[in-house]
Amino acid sequence: MVAVKRVVGCRVADPDVEGLVDILIEAGRIREILPASGSPAGAGDLDACGMVAVPGLTNAHTHTPLSLMKGAAEDVSVDDWFNKRVWPMEMNLTPERVKIGARLACAEMLLGGVTGFADHYFFADQIAAAAQELGIRANIAPTFFSEAGGASRERAFDQTRAIVEMDSRLVTASVGPHAPYTVGDDDLRLASDLARSLGVRIHIHAAENMQQTESSLERLGCTPMTVLERTGILDAGVLIAHGGGIVASDREVLEPAAERVSVACCPKVYFKHDIDPITPVRLLHEWGISVGAGTDGAAGGNTLDVWEAMRWTALAQKRQEHDPLFLPVSDAFALGTRGGATAASHSNAGVLRAGAVADIVLVDVSGPHCQPIHDLTATLVYSVRASDVHSVIVDGELVVRARQLCNAELAEIVEEARATAPELVKIRPGEAVQHYAP
Amino acid sequence: MVAVKRVVGCRVADPDVEGLVDILIEAGRIREILPASGSPAGAGDLDACGMVAVPGLTNAHTHTPLSLMKGAAEDVSVDDWFNKRVWPMEMNLTPERVKIGARLACAEMLLGGVTGFADHYFFADQIAAAAQELGIRANIAPTFFSEAGGASRERAFDQTRAIVEMDSRLVTASVGPHAPYTVGDDDLRLASDLARSLGVRIHIHAAENMQQTESSLERLGCTPMTVLERTGILDAGVLIAHGGGIVASDREVLEPAAERVSVACCPKVYFKHDIDPITPVRLLHEWGISVGAGTDGAAGGNTLDVWEAMRWTALAQKRQEHDPLFLPVSDAFALGTRGGATAASHSNAGVLRAGAVADIVLVDVSGPHCQPIHDLTATLVYSVRASDVHSVIVDGELVVRARQLCNAELAEIVEEARATAPELVKIRPGEAVQHYAP
Repeated sequence: MVAVKRVVGCRVADPDVEGLVDILIEAGRIREILPASGSPAGAGDLDACGMVAVPGLTNAHTHTPLSLMKGAAEDVSVDDWFNKRVWPMEMNLTPERVKIGARLACAEMLLGGVTGFADHYFFADQIAAAAQELGIRANIAPTFFSEAGGASRERAFDQTRAIVEMDSRLVTASVGPHAPYTVGDDDLRLASDLARSLGVRIHIHAAENMQQTESSLERLGCTPMTVLERTGILDAGVLIAHGGGIVASDREVLEPAAERVSVACCPKVYFKHDIDPITPVRLLHEWGISVGAGTDGAAGGNTLDVWEAMRWTALAQKRQEHDPLFLPVSDAFALGTRGGATAASHSNAGVLRAGAVADIVLVDVSGPHCQPIHDLTATLVYSVRASDVHSVIVDGELVVRARQLCNAELAEIVEEARATAPELVKIRPGEAVQHYAP
Repeated sequence: MVAVKRVVGCRVADPDVEGLVDILIEAGRIREILPASGSPAGAGDLDACGMVAVPGLTNAHTHTPLSLMKGAAEDVSVDDWFNKRVWPMEMNLTPERVKIGARLACAEMLLGGVTGFADHYFFADQIAAAAQELGIRANIAPTFFSEAGGASRERAFDQTRAIVEMDSRLVTASVGPHAPYTVGDDDLRLASDLARSLGVRIHIHAAENMQQTESSLERLGCTPMTVLERTGILDAGVLIAHGGGIVASDREVLEPAAERVSVACCPKVYFKHDIDPITPVRLLHEWGISVGAGTDGAAGGNTLDVWEAMRWTALAQKRQEHDPLFLPVSDAFALGTRGGATAASHSNAGVLRAGAVADIVLVDVSGPHCQPIHDLTATLVYSVRASDVHSVIVDGELVVRARQLCNAELAEIVEEARATAPELVKIRPGEAVQHYAP
């Protein structure tokens, strides 16, 4: 591991900061941001000449091991995506395969400037190991369905406890009930009890689309948000994945819990699967709830590109609100940075300021697709590609240097994934981890 | 200029072709595609080991010089975008600045695997010179507004004639009336007469959104498509930019002209400026009209990334049709390749087959965001980034080799753009090339 003491001579995407700066780092945190001293980079320094430093992006909702299935479930309805493709394919999961998928995902994210992610999946210990190996910040929610029984729930709870006990600087946990339509109220109550007792949050799919909200109203007489409220989930604190079915009347339960609730918006999968409306960002922001941009799993979204997720969240929200002035570039940039970090319970991350964790990305904006620059934040939101990421620091350690992973061999990670992938997509009729019928 | 005789040992994105192939090139055309011989790359050969060969992408609608204004008109309404930002800024145009912007745009496109584009702009000779210098295929429509007077129209017509007379292999022309709301019927008739006499098509903005269609119905009693029909534009052949306001009743005039009509869909700007509905691709396809993916100018869309335009056209169309099965990956890929080439009047382009022009892009799909590959076409549509483009051949000549331009210095192009950009965005109250009031 290579600790960085100083990032030397970069621009920052802050309209209040003129000229070049040096960023001083100590014990994994930003100690100070100063006008550039002009002294050359020495030992422990990272030369950032010509680069723009931004806070690391955070992927607000993903399922890293599904990176092994990208492209294996295209051009299907949501029902078929779950019931004929992904949930049957997930029967092929083993701890080894989960780790292979998670390593691939962590590699893609780090090389693309993503310094943290909120994961929701099985075999959480394997994901934790991959994140620690590659040096990326992760909040992992071990998943369970009620139908799989109490033992399955307890196994997931134990995995959350085990990660909490690791007391890692990089890897933290949430409690991971799958969704209100696959997890009963009793189990949701147990989940919120556990979260409160451990001092962690819950990460759950809820009101993923309007159909789920309508179905909940029909079956239970209340919206999914009310289910989260009455089972203590909102009180414990929660990251809600998607929330396209959150409605105006949910204000009553959401607004009082605003500071404990985040929502992840993953635009690519909404368009692919015709989910309309999508996460109501304007409403959520009005209620004081933070929103982060996410990619969902690559079995749906194909990539873990948070630049794309941030950009298309902003564009899709302008369209949804019929207001081209909504989410100006500075607010759009926050969806991928501060908003994502809050979603992933990564406190004091997603910003460049003294005292924040030193999760820093150096972006090379010299390409013809970025130049000329009239508005640096607009460049970051609407022009920069994941491939413009040059170097990445997580928790003060250099994890990507000049577009190369520092802690693992990319070629080996990719080769392992290629060798395993064919086993993942074998489907056996009648076998699936769960049936989708929200 | 480096002519390529053979592309050696690549995969192709054609489900009917197994294993590796060699692509033989002669006189700017693909002579034959054969199973790979296994013989090593020699003189005149391009080693494509590990790469995927795809037909070059085509940008179906853009304004290349606006690349100098990227990021200078963010978070504004469509009206303000035109009237307070871009049309006033365009007063700063000079032939020299247009060339600087066009060179920057051509560089971005070639490095991103775009081998051709349909442009609509002023100072067309400068754009033509930039395209020839860098080695990219271009169809350029010299723009005019009726309000600027007959001399302005004749100047634009002369520019179209001049490009036709160049008889270039790479650069061709269209006739470029701006739009039915800025060009009167008499001028549209003169435009279609000229197009017919020169054997070229027209490139025009029309029915850009539903508001324009409604306004046309109110003012003229007919839709913009009927205006194109009665002024001879459909008969002469036309590339229609946007067409979000094309309605079912337009079938009567469009279907009979289907083989002469194309439409460009530029999704990024539609979302940014809240244009809803967007280009009705399903309807157009049903009528036999080809659709290409475009970026529009970078003053609106920020980048000239046709991978992004193709991907988000497909995703936005699934959503608009409420049908996740619409535009399966092979049809989506055609939006960026065959569809775009047809839009730009680039005949026999956008496909890899014997007899087609040798516009070939080698894509490196080894990155963690592309791997593993379960469906190569899905990888190309939903995972590949412009930065995965490794080498590019246009008309049989190598124009990008190992991510570097062959015919110009990128650093010089970018520096020239940076130096010029501040002059472009100076706005003088009351001055604009035109007023937007469709």
